[in-house]
Amino acid sequence: MTLDDQMRDLAMRARKSSRQLARLSCEDRNRCLVAMADAIDREADTIREANQKDLAAGRGMGLSSAMLDRLELTPARIASMSRGLREVAALPDPTGRVLDQRVLPNGLRLRKVSCPLGVIVIIYESRPNVTVDAAGLCFKAGSSTILRGGKEALHSNQCLARIMIDAAWAALPGFPKDAIQVVPTTDRAAIPALLSQTEYVDLCMPRGGEGLIRAVAECSKVPVIKHYTGVCHVYLHRDADAAMAASIAVNAKCQRPGVCNAMETLLVDVVAANAILPEVAGQLLKKGVELRCDERALSILKNLDDADAGDGKIVAATGDDWSAEYLDLILAVKVVDGLSDAIEHINRYGSGHSDSIVTSSPEAAATFMNEVDAAAVYWNASTRFTDGGQFGMGAEIGISTDKIGARGPMGLEELTTYKWMITGEGQVRE
Amino acid sequence: MTLDDQMRDLAMRARKSSRQLARLSCEDRNRCLVAMADAIDREADTIREANQKDLAAGRGMGLSSAMLDRLELTPARIASMSRGLREVAALPDPTGRVLDQRVLPNGLRLRKVSCPLGVIVIIYESRPNVTVDAAGLCFKAGSSTILRGGKEALHSNQCLARIMIDAAWAALPGFPKDAIQVVPTTDRAAIPALLSQTEYVDLCMPRGGEGLIRAVAECSKVPVIKHYTGVCHVYLHRDADAAMAASIAVNAKCQRPGVCNAMETLLVDVVAANAILPEVAGQLLKKGVELRCDERALSILKNLDDADAGDGKIVAATGDDWSAEYLDLILAVKVVDGLSDAIEHINRYGSGHSDSIVTSSPEAAATFMNEVDAAAVYWNASTRFTDGGQFGMGAEIGISTDKIGARGPMGLEELTTYKWMITGEGQVRE
Repeated sequence: MTLDDQMRDLAMRARKSSRQLARLSCEDRNRCLVAMADAIDREADTIREANQKDLAAGRGMGLSSAMLDRLELTPARIASMSRGLREVAALPDPTGRVLDQRVLPNGLRLRKVSCPLGVIVIIYESRPNVTVDAAGLCFKAGSSTILRGGKEALHSNQCLARIMIDAAWAALPGFPKDAIQVVPTTDRAAIPALLSQTEYVDLCMPRGGEGLIRAVAECSKVPVIKHYTGVCHVYLHRDADAAMAASIAVNAKCQRPGVCNAMETLLVDVVAANAILPEVAGQLLKKGVELRCDERALSILKNLDDADAGDGKIVAATGDDWSAEYLDLILAVKVVDGLSDAIEHINRYGSGHSDSIVTSSPEAAATFMNEVDAAAVYWNASTRFTDGGQFGMGAEIGISTDKIGARGPMGLEELTTYKWMITGEGQVRE
Repeated sequence: MTLDDQMRDLAMRARKSSRQLARLSCEDRNRCLVAMADAIDREADTIREANQKDLAAGRGMGLSSAMLDRLELTPARIASMSRGLREVAALPDPTGRVLDQRVLPNGLRLRKVSCPLGVIVIIYESRPNVTVDAAGLCFKAGSSTILRGGKEALHSNQCLARIMIDAAWAALPGFPKDAIQVVPTTDRAAIPALLSQTEYVDLCMPRGGEGLIRAVAECSKVPVIKHYTGVCHVYLHRDADAAMAASIAVNAKCQRPGVCNAMETLLVDVVAANAILPEVAGQLLKKGVELRCDERALSILKNLDDADAGDGKIVAATGDDWSAEYLDLILAVKVVDGLSDAIEHINRYGSGHSDSIVTSSPEAAATFMNEVDAAAVYWNASTRFTDGGQFGMGAEIGISTDKIGARGPMGLEELTTYKWMITGEGQVRE
């Protein structure tokens, strides 16, 4: 069988299973999810054995200690996966929601109803917990998943998928065994082959670094929802409260710098910069942040007492800094000429993820929120809230930086599509 | 300037204009639409002159009379375009709708609000009215359009776009002139070049034959919403009322056979076939329909009185008939073994557009509507209702057979995306 045939077969089986999944009640899906969680707890040793194989091979390949750490399934991480499945089981059914309804003048009753997508491909890097998290969410949403993790995690991923499927089968005889599949080859050519199965695959979601996402988007013939990481901004408007400005800036940058909703660029209104920036910069420096400043910010901060700098430092920004995603205690700082200049900067350099304005002016906030082209726009709050859990969605599969299909946090509802259901009494068109 | 540079420049200007469009109130957008409509009426002679150039060139190229007919802008068609713009102006604003809202335990107020997509590329074939219809709808939804029509309609399309832009500019000084652009070259390589501008283009919608749509989907790096035409089914369940069955089948096939929501395959339950099929087939034959029947249907219909056949005829189906889209007075007819067999046939051969069940059984209808994987599923009604106008959307840009972004008729609401707007009082993440 050629690789193309193999991927077509995989996708066809996923499609067939998705038809069966669509017939399961939510109670049955939840029963399977709980059974999967129980099995993961019960078979923790088996999982660790499979994971040890991957870790040993990874050490042999010379993986960095950071990569080995991401790859490792500790008892705590295994418990976290099963807990995640139980949480997903407890969430409301995302299918069957009536999104719109109307009765036409001819008496036809229209309902727009959420329903499963069908077949979802997830492509991801080393963390094997994605196998469980993503497959669990897609399953709850009534879709089959085809999982393609990193080659270094193949044993772990296959073991986890097998445990989930076997548990579901035991809990619900007749459970479609191809509802969760791991691509059985590490051949890179499998990805374009799989993403050419437009007849059987409805959606692909790549999760990982920008390189992975771009490569997937480049080769895919099926729709892709991209989850690029974020170049997020906080803009301190001239009417910003200084204490709030500092608190939000410090939280957005420092509370967890390595995530996509952390701030990467701080914009300060020229009118307020002298009054606000030294205090804000001082607090960031004390937290160890390296500030990469434009000329105007540098000139305001040049007299800052070195003793206040803590572990941080102040350097001159280069052009690359405005679109950099540091994911670290580094921050680009720019003085802007007002609201329009800030919006223009964000729309030019931002990644459309999360941007915040700090101001006491409702008018400035409304303009900012309307005109900044991003998944999440904030007024007087930290960008760090862009997250399915924080938003009350219960769980998320990622944060979409696309505008088609889903934007921002993707929870269960965002993993469904809809259909129009029309009921009549014999109506025909005139 | 290379073609790539030219397309990048076009797309960048569209993006820039889209930022300005996003700032226009709905009243301003409506004022521009009415001004465009007035200008099209006023400049009907100019439009006909440009159209005559295209028609003359078309005759020189040896276009078929059907193609020349599609290309021609008659006074009635010009009036229909301006009327369309006025209707769009009268529709509610699709942006700024609050789709969801919640207050988080920490006091953050979340609103999910519809907003413009940004830049939409429309690729279409010969009918120049699409220029006005599509640009008008996208403009109302707050987005810039880049239009790529057939090469045979270039003069007409450029003339129409120029008139719309000039009218909007006169009605609203400062109107962004690149909000509606026609690709100025007929070079085929312009399409992949344009659809590689992922930074500036948010969505592409190809409108036309399957070949065009496949070619666009194949080369595009930006999201595409496909509007494939339809292989629609009517399934006569064993509990179907015979008179209703005949009425719906005749309407779905004959009322307008050349459109995507017309029926292409009739499925008849084996239990009811002897009782129902002769009557239904007789009525279809009288309307001149050619019935391409499977063996079981042939055997039921073999004794049908020839005198009843009208202009229609009965022939044996081949394997190709089950996935054929005739767009003509031809119908595939198959006897199926019950509800599951019907659903399986539809999910295998259908195009996910519109499928109907005729039955008096609510249980059978519910199973059919849940399990048939299509944009519109009907119970006791003709498939011909799948249409933005019929659905009460006011106007549509097409009917999506995709599941991501929009499914079924795409009206103004389906031409928007959304953003999360979050308002706080200084909240930071713990």
